[in-house]
Amino acid sequence: MDTSCIFCKIASGAFGTAFVHEDDAVVAFEDLNPQAPHHVLIIPREHVVSLSSASDAHDAMLSRLLRVAAKIASERGIAESGYRAVINTGPDGGQSVFHLHVHLLGGRPLAWPPG
Amino acid sequence: MDTSCIFCKIASGAFGTAFVHEDDAVVAFEDLNPQAPHHVLIIPREHVVSLSSASDAHDAMLSRLLRVAAKIASERGIAESGYRAVINTGPDGGQSVFHLHVHLLGGRPLAWPPG
Repeated sequence: MDTSCIFCKIASGAFGTAFVHEDDAVVAFEDLNPQAPHHVLIIPREHVVSLSSASDAHDAMLSRLLRVAAKIASERGIAESGYRAVINTGPDGGQSVFHLHVHLLGGRPLAWPPG
Repeated sequence: MDTSCIFCKIASGAFGTAFVHEDDAVVAFEDLNPQAPHHVLIIPREHVVSLSSASDAHDAMLSRLLRVAAKIASERGIAESGYRAVINTGPDGGQSVFHLHVHLLGGRPLAWPPG
């Protein structure tokens, strides 16, 4: 845990965040600035700065992030209507918190290009 | 392989597509309709319709898709400037080919929301 990282603090439960999903490796919660009717963040409990920081040791966690995104989409009834999973890395990617996270967006048509 | 699937055909080499990356599980190639200076698609060789079709059996492939995206970003010198990885599922997600794929976009600032 990086004690200066807001996502580490959220994952630790320090803010009493309501989790959409939690397991031994990842937690999911609502984005505070939602960009679609459904906008959930899925993050690892471990402090990994970005996708570019992930190594072999993180493979199980990476697949878990994506499978949890799909599970939440299914639970919310948007698996059929559709959704987008987005991972931002660095400035051009628009990464604003330097703890790896997957954005799950759905509930409206998502335009192209994706930003 | 689904013989009616264009991405299965691409992965098989039927079109002579130049691969940015290839290994036993995934291949990567340039998007034909690029939305950024760098726009690469990373796909599994196996025909998996979408992220919502992925099961436990696909965990290694899913992490490989993401790690290959990061590797290509590094090779192209955009790991530091930043990039976005996007997976579209279903109509609202804007999925246009029903064979799972990750879009890697970089080389310009990507706006928010992501579509």
